[in-house]
Amino acid sequence: MPAKPTRRKPYELFYWPGIPGRGEYVRLALEEAGAPYVDVVREREGGMDEMLALMEGEGTKHPAFAPPFLRDGRVVIGQVAAILFYLGPRLRLAPKSESAALWTHQIELTISDFAAEAHDVHHPVGVGLYYEDQKKEAARRAEEFRGARMPKFLDWFEAVLEANGASEAKPHLVGRSLTYADLSLFHTVDGLLYAFPKATARLLRKRPLVAALHAATRERPRIAAYLKSERRQPFNESGIFRHYRELDR
Amino acid sequence: MPAKPTRRKPYELFYWPGIPGRGEYVRLALEEAGAPYVDVVREREGGMDEMLALMEGEGTKHPAFAPPFLRDGRVVIGQVAAILFYLGPRLRLAPKSESAALWTHQIELTISDFAAEAHDVHHPVGVGLYYEDQKKEAARRAEEFRGARMPKFLDWFEAVLEANGASEAKPHLVGRSLTYADLSLFHTVDGLLYAFPKATARLLRKRPLVAALHAATRERPRIAAYLKSERRQPFNESGIFRHYRELDR
Repeated sequence: MPAKPTRRKPYELFYWPGIPGRGEYVRLALEEAGAPYVDVVREREGGMDEMLALMEGEGTKHPAFAPPFLRDGRVVIGQVAAILFYLGPRLRLAPKSESAALWTHQIELTISDFAAEAHDVHHPVGVGLYYEDQKKEAARRAEEFRGARMPKFLDWFEAVLEANGASEAKPHLVGRSLTYADLSLFHTVDGLLYAFPKATARLLRKRPLVAALHAATRERPRIAAYLKSERRQPFNESGIFRHYRELDR
Repeated sequence: MPAKPTRRKPYELFYWPGIPGRGEYVRLALEEAGAPYVDVVREREGGMDEMLALMEGEGTKHPAFAPPFLRDGRVVIGQVAAILFYLGPRLRLAPKSESAALWTHQIELTISDFAAEAHDVHHPVGVGLYYEDQKKEAARRAEEFRGARMPKFLDWFEAVLEANGASEAKPHLVGRSLTYADLSLFHTVDGLLYAFPKATARLLRKRPLVAALHAATRERPRIAAYLKSERRQPFNESGIFRHYRELDR
């Protein structure tokens, strides 16, 4: 592992333990940058209470509606895309011009929408109900997701990569170097490969640049080391991307 | 009507015609600021073709995944929250400090999530199916939305208003003056009053600051004039907020 910068106070990430979930999009950016951070609920005694207190507005004027949220000194920020917009320039994972920074953010927001739809497949009738209570509806929604929504989203990312002149050697969504949006698309594809392995593999064959981005990102030294570490939590059936055999084909 | 500034080229808003939809969040900011803009598809011959061409990447390197998107000279931006983040300082509808601007954005992203859930109530099984083909599922989802999700979101906005020291005279989410987030929450509450009049009226009785924000925003001179104009399209059963009597109680 490359040496981490030690000058600054660690970032503090607050998220539910036990799933990669939406917190993973933030973790990947921090890991790729080698930034010092604490995954508070998992690593600090009383971390869960601390997270819940912050959500109640104790100790911050900006309580997030839901985890994940990030604390950086006195700043508390929620919403994955907003967190990454804040971290991007600080971690050197975002372009500098206003226009390019906003475009990166716009791509990230579209990734958020894609992830939300992937989640809704297994919870179409309500987030408060178990999957087992909405299996029939989930099967109908999965059909549309595999047949129409996944292709539409993946086509858009493929077109963005192509318009950016991306190649297997430089598979980036914006500019010539890695941004947080690349990391987030990597993770989303990774989640889809877990949840819908057949459909995703089939769709990726016709989206070579998205497939190249996924393959190349996984092998970046810090990401590869992270994925092998205990800090990485496996996908499971409590998160955004869930594998139910009957929903894939 | 106050005189509009005439120095700049009008902003161009691209959105589907016939519904307020997500485009309305952008329209309200432009209207409140008295900014010159063209609602391209509704006002310009060939506007629909122009919108579809831009989505295919003709004439822009940054094609949006979906409308609405905004063109300002050479800049093209999609995703409502990103558009408003861009417009905020230009229309004087956002605070200046990085921290307060990001907080306003975070609130806007939470409003987007709320609107997406309001939409999913009538389309739980799939966006490609008609409401009539998913009425039973919609009834189950509506129950959770009215009973759990609406209260949770509205409680959060009420708490944000309270923490900001909002009052009936100054019902603002951030700081002491109007931001685009106030306009967006106004519109969301307006949509909920249309879609779920009984549930929303009941819930607002216990969230006086949200109710005050809605009432006060509606009476701002430019907003009131806009709401009476032909530029304002009524809510209907093709948009985000749809009224189906059986889903409200």
